[in-house]
Amino acid sequence: MISKNRIRFIKSLQQKKQRIENGLFVIEGEKMVNEAIEWVPQHIDSIYHTSEYKNEIKNDNTFSFNEITLQELKEISTLTTPNKVIAICRKLPTIDIKSNYLIALDGIQDPGNMGTIIRLADWFGISHVICSKETVDCYNPKVLQATMGAIYRVNVIYTDLVSFFKNNSLPVYGALLEGENLFNCELKKNGIIVLGNEGNGISETIKNHIDIPITIPKYGHAESLNVATAGAIILGTFFQKL
Amino acid sequence: MISKNRIRFIKSLQQKKQRIENGLFVIEGEKMVNEAIEWVPQHIDSIYHTSEYKNEIKNDNTFSFNEITLQELKEISTLTTPNKVIAICRKLPTIDIKSNYLIALDGIQDPGNMGTIIRLADWFGISHVICSKETVDCYNPKVLQATMGAIYRVNVIYTDLVSFFKNNSLPVYGALLEGENLFNCELKKNGIIVLGNEGNGISETIKNHIDIPITIPKYGHAESLNVATAGAIILGTFFQKL
Repeated sequence: MISKNRIRFIKSLQQKKQRIENGLFVIEGEKMVNEAIEWVPQHIDSIYHTSEYKNEIKNDNTFSFNEITLQELKEISTLTTPNKVIAICRKLPTIDIKSNYLIALDGIQDPGNMGTIIRLADWFGISHVICSKETVDCYNPKVLQATMGAIYRVNVIYTDLVSFFKNNSLPVYGALLEGENLFNCELKKNGIIVLGNEGNGISETIKNHIDIPITIPKYGHAESLNVATAGAIILGTFFQKL
Repeated sequence: MISKNRIRFIKSLQQKKQRIENGLFVIEGEKMVNEAIEWVPQHIDSIYHTSEYKNEIKNDNTFSFNEITLQELKEISTLTTPNKVIAICRKLPTIDIKSNYLIALDGIQDPGNMGTIIRLADWFGISHVICSKETVDCYNPKVLQATMGAIYRVNVIYTDLVSFFKNNSLPVYGALLEGENLFNCELKKNGIIVLGNEGNGISETIKNHIDIPITIPKYGHAESLNVATAGAIILGTFFQKL
């Protein structure tokens, strides 16, 4: 059972403004909810699930656990085929680790790209993804889905990138179309790797703060690479050379 | 001007069955159409554009070039915000080059991933993407959009992967969660790189035909990587070691 008011409230969290005002966001599906239970249980506010959802929830949890019908689940879901369970979560905690490499995003717009980059960061144990304020909201449902749970283990911070670079002594690497050949250049053991907007790349303002422009060598004809795949090649090369 | 019949016909090409029956597919937007004019002009059947679309079309082209209204463009487009121009194309030609590396896809389902992998192949000058028959259709509008024009320069072939491997003497590399460490293992100067389905990875049948299982080393906690980013890291490593 779920009240009409609660349904309305949960649906309102599809809007960024409502998510910020309430400090809450929504995750969907078994994978995302099970990983939240494992990694950030203290940040779950409530779970709504159909009778099909099975999880050995311990009694000492602080969140409410409510069985609803498939029809009710469809009402609160953003997916065309909702998957058994939805959870309302409180804004995620800050993780108190700092890795040798950080990723900075300068205006990434596509939720799929954003989520994929957070997942990539998690794979390589990167603690922070620092985003310009124009970057898509990391609590957007499509971003969350694309992270496949990585959002619970990576700090995503929205700030002014220039100030962030100035307050850090780390070398700043930028993925550009005219930089040093990534495969041949010497890479440091730490640094910030900047990835730019899908259409326009890294903005002029940010370009001025890049210490080492790097380019992925091209062997064919594509004009550019998808930003998440470009980030993947860059991180792979950094970690291979470690 | 465009007739009601023609509108109905163009819309029918959104279905895979119709695309196969007619040997035609639809591309949208300035980037995709301009690249088609540059790379495969002889495969364009007709172009429909609004008055905003500017291109110096040479007179010796064989395709028809028709101005339509924005309202008409909206009717034939699959995009929520159509971008000036649409073209109907005939099935793409086979490119008569063979690169040292080929990519094989075992049941990729997401159109965005598929298009991104074709774009990645184009960047690295990979001539062929060989797909199992369960892999998403490369003429699906979302796949085409994600290739950003790379579809004109990469052969995408649907066939039985096992027979393909048997008819080729190339070593077969497979991206698995339990293989040799990609960063440390010796990589040959040629080969087929197999990427598996988003949820299930490489199928059991195909696994039996992999000569060298490879794994991207993990430094953090993500359970897996997005398939296009995994492919990007693998290709980046191969080309870096060349």
